[in-house]
Amino acid sequence: MKWNAWGDPALAKPLSDRILTLLTSVFGELQHVDTPDAADVVLRPSALTPDDIAALTAAVGAENFSTADADRLPRAGGKSTFDLLRRKSRDVQDAPDAVVLPATDEEVAAVLAVCVERRIAVVPFGGGTSVTGGLEPIRGDFAAVISLDLHHSDQLSKLDEVSREATLGAGLTGPAAEALLAEQGYELGHYPQSFRFATIGGFAATRSSGQDSAGFGRFDDMIRGLRVITPEGVLDLGRAPKSAAGPDLRELFSGSEGTFGIITAVRLRVHPVPAEKRHESWRFPDFATGAAALRAVTQNGTGPTVIRLSDEVETGLNLAMTDKIGGDQVSGGCIGMTVFEGTADQVNGRHETTRAALLAAGGESLGDEPALAWEHGRFDAPYLRDGLLANGALCETLETATDWGNLDRLKGAVTQALQATLQETGTGSIVMCHISHIYPTGASLYFTVIGAQRGDPIAQWQRAKNAACDAIMANGGTITHHHAVGADHRPWMDQEVGELGVRVLRAVKAAVDPTGILNPGKLIP
Amino acid sequence: MKWNAWGDPALAKPLSDRILTLLTSVFGELQHVDTPDAADVVLRPSALTPDDIAALTAAVGAENFSTADADRLPRAGGKSTFDLLRRKSRDVQDAPDAVVLPATDEEVAAVLAVCVERRIAVVPFGGGTSVTGGLEPIRGDFAAVISLDLHHSDQLSKLDEVSREATLGAGLTGPAAEALLAEQGYELGHYPQSFRFATIGGFAATRSSGQDSAGFGRFDDMIRGLRVITPEGVLDLGRAPKSAAGPDLRELFSGSEGTFGIITAVRLRVHPVPAEKRHESWRFPDFATGAAALRAVTQNGTGPTVIRLSDEVETGLNLAMTDKIGGDQVSGGCIGMTVFEGTADQVNGRHETTRAALLAAGGESLGDEPALAWEHGRFDAPYLRDGLLANGALCETLETATDWGNLDRLKGAVTQALQATLQETGTGSIVMCHISHIYPTGASLYFTVIGAQRGDPIAQWQRAKNAACDAIMANGGTITHHHAVGADHRPWMDQEVGELGVRVLRAVKAAVDPTGILNPGKLIP
Repeated sequence: MKWNAWGDPALAKPLSDRILTLLTSVFGELQHVDTPDAADVVLRPSALTPDDIAALTAAVGAENFSTADADRLPRAGGKSTFDLLRRKSRDVQDAPDAVVLPATDEEVAAVLAVCVERRIAVVPFGGGTSVTGGLEPIRGDFAAVISLDLHHSDQLSKLDEVSREATLGAGLTGPAAEALLAEQGYELGHYPQSFRFATIGGFAATRSSGQDSAGFGRFDDMIRGLRVITPEGVLDLGRAPKSAAGPDLRELFSGSEGTFGIITAVRLRVHPVPAEKRHESWRFPDFATGAAALRAVTQNGTGPTVIRLSDEVETGLNLAMTDKIGGDQVSGGCIGMTVFEGTADQVNGRHETTRAALLAAGGESLGDEPALAWEHGRFDAPYLRDGLLANGALCETLETATDWGNLDRLKGAVTQALQATLQETGTGSIVMCHISHIYPTGASLYFTVIGAQRGDPIAQWQRAKNAACDAIMANGGTITHHHAVGADHRPWMDQEVGELGVRVLRAVKAAVDPTGILNPGKLIP
Repeated sequence: MKWNAWGDPALAKPLSDRILTLLTSVFGELQHVDTPDAADVVLRPSALTPDDIAALTAAVGAENFSTADADRLPRAGGKSTFDLLRRKSRDVQDAPDAVVLPATDEEVAAVLAVCVERRIAVVPFGGGTSVTGGLEPIRGDFAAVISLDLHHSDQLSKLDEVSREATLGAGLTGPAAEALLAEQGYELGHYPQSFRFATIGGFAATRSSGQDSAGFGRFDDMIRGLRVITPEGVLDLGRAPKSAAGPDLRELFSGSEGTFGIITAVRLRVHPVPAEKRHESWRFPDFATGAAALRAVTQNGTGPTVIRLSDEVETGLNLAMTDKIGGDQVSGGCIGMTVFEGTADQVNGRHETTRAALLAAGGESLGDEPALAWEHGRFDAPYLRDGLLANGALCETLETATDWGNLDRLKGAVTQALQATLQETGTGSIVMCHISHIYPTGASLYFTVIGAQRGDPIAQWQRAKNAACDAIMANGGTITHHHAVGADHRPWMDQEVGELGVRVLRAVKAAVDPTGILNPGKLIP
């Protein structure tokens, strides 16, 4: 993963002339962006004392400890637009004071014990793909902060083929986990956009939801058990698939974003690699018709693996298909995608009932090609942002969810807030939206915003982001459907869960992390 | 609901001669049981002071407050075998010191404020159907305890037909809630055996799971939002269908059994009343084959509304069909039941794929009749227990859940523990089991135990129950799949969630109920 951009350097794509022309025609002249090399970046020096270093080294071994800038820089933040813009600064950049790579639960516990004793904050690190400030090296009340990198927790330690459960190490990336499962004919089916880099532990800690959530569920649905190392001891959560033995504590540690403990292993529901896969794309005359069609599919339980709907703006830009952005339109109206997986019988049955529901709700089939194109580029959209940011455009995504009955109101309010605020900063904007996760009672809304950088782009985007978050809270949305809270959404958590809800979260934290070393400044106000 | 037996007095059934003959032939002579009338019961006098009474009366009005024995006795406990045996005592029986019936959230908050100030414990009361000691009038460190009866919270306050959500008052019984929804063409589809008496708030507080869970989900799956009144303030949980904004606090208050707050309203996923319904019954050669067949159904997602499997013993006694208990066997082997609901197309599709899976897994169809008979008597089994207890037999149920791969081991261990312990108390026993809730990774096990009362039946059953709970914990089960923890399962909670898990629960409780008035002695060790 690149230190200052998304993903694999080999896959980076400079903006095409077509897109650059489109940008300047919409936004006018774009300002120059200074893009320093890694060698030009000046990191805050490590604040660890020789005694700190000796204690941490004793916990994990010298080969699993580093204060080198080359190790600290890639863990200085995540991959939000804020993060990527901060990485361009020629001022001193903040970074964790060391990177520590424990190999076992015992080493994780030993690291936490050192950090409690020596009062060092701990930021857990998986794939580094947070887009909500979950990896900010916030020291809180502490003199130092370390990045606790879990990538040595990379085992498939158990596969129960009867119960269809796999216990996977927290540090396994999506592809690494799928490769281990595929050796035995299974898969997890969790494909968020961050799939290629993000990790099993990160999926659990952030309540991730993947593009196949309609078929295989959100990541929290897949969690059968969690192993969590805290400064106060170890939790092995999940005695049974479901239980009435009080609150479900798995649901308290899912989404805890490293503030309650270090998730080192996750026991997950898996399924055999599907035998068949089928794609169909759809056109709806408008977003409201398309949304009602998706609602019919989930409320009737017709079983697609993937179902998505782009609004008119996203459809018009072909943003659903990364390879074709800005090219000729596939269609007017709103494009939708469906994918079906399973045995041949399952695929036939699910496809037949879903297409009947979509046709009845006003959809028109566009065949398989657009859905195949979407699938081909499904993990590539973040590369586009790098090109936009480098060329003076502003680009970011944000997401929320609400009930079906409130979808239009929320979509309109967020769009309006983004456009109006960016206009105040001196740029027009393109605000696109899609639905990619559906439930019987509601759906997610995922916005992509493009504008021009004007002045300090960090301050500019902060203003727009604040307005969007305020609009979400004022119009019945959740502050995040699948990107988590981190440092960026934390100011809205009191509205999200209420003042007493915040006190409950603080009480849990005090029970498992009384010194407060775990990921300070994230999630809990 | 009767004070000393299950349900509606008009539906009580004395044991048939056939069953009595069966009992004495299996267990020998049964001991006489003394069954006092309500007029013979001596209740512990109310411990409330005149000042307490004045303050509580001021909170809810005189007409919603009572210290009369006739009101306290029906709220002295739930409907476990322990409870029913305790009600037969001619010694002084414990009971709440008053019954308080608030009509609004504000009145609930006012009652809690009085109880905090005057140090009075509070036991929330819905339908009174707890079978795990959830209603024990435990005073804890307090001088008095009241029963907070929620039956005035009986409104359908909102129905959103687009989002398919209904907000229902906590005090609505199952039939009352379904009647309100049916007026507008909807239903909840939650049918536990306690359905006729238990309440919406009780279902949420205990993580109930109904007989249609395969189709409509557990009650916690249906919860879109919760309103909870605590001594420290009000929580309105659930901003969106699903969210990544930290832990899901709905899952912390679901199953909190009145120890974290008073649930006064629940926003629930509902669905249109199904147009069609179809039944099919099955015979499997043995339990292992049947369990594997049910596993195939859930792991392939074929969509029955109800699916159940009785073991050989339960099948032999026809216990699956209350009207026919002890009569001619429907079949050897193990009987299974399936029910399908939905539109005609959905019923056809779900039935076709489910029956294909069950046939492939070794099932033989028995037509619709046994499944219709099961459905007809689905809420009546508890009446049978009253007749057994009155005639000197011992009868109780208990349940757990585990992974598919561990099902046989757990079933064998619990059966063995019950039989061996009851043998030590001087009676043979019949231990039956069925599966009634299935998940892709595992299933519930529901045991029914019949023996003869020997000496003090409370002490006798406590010994057997302890052995069963120990066996559950030693063999990978959960202490309860859908009956909750209450006072009865509380001694096993430290094993269920671990010592640190218990500290987390205590921390949450301290945040919302710092004086500890809420349902002391339940759930949290």
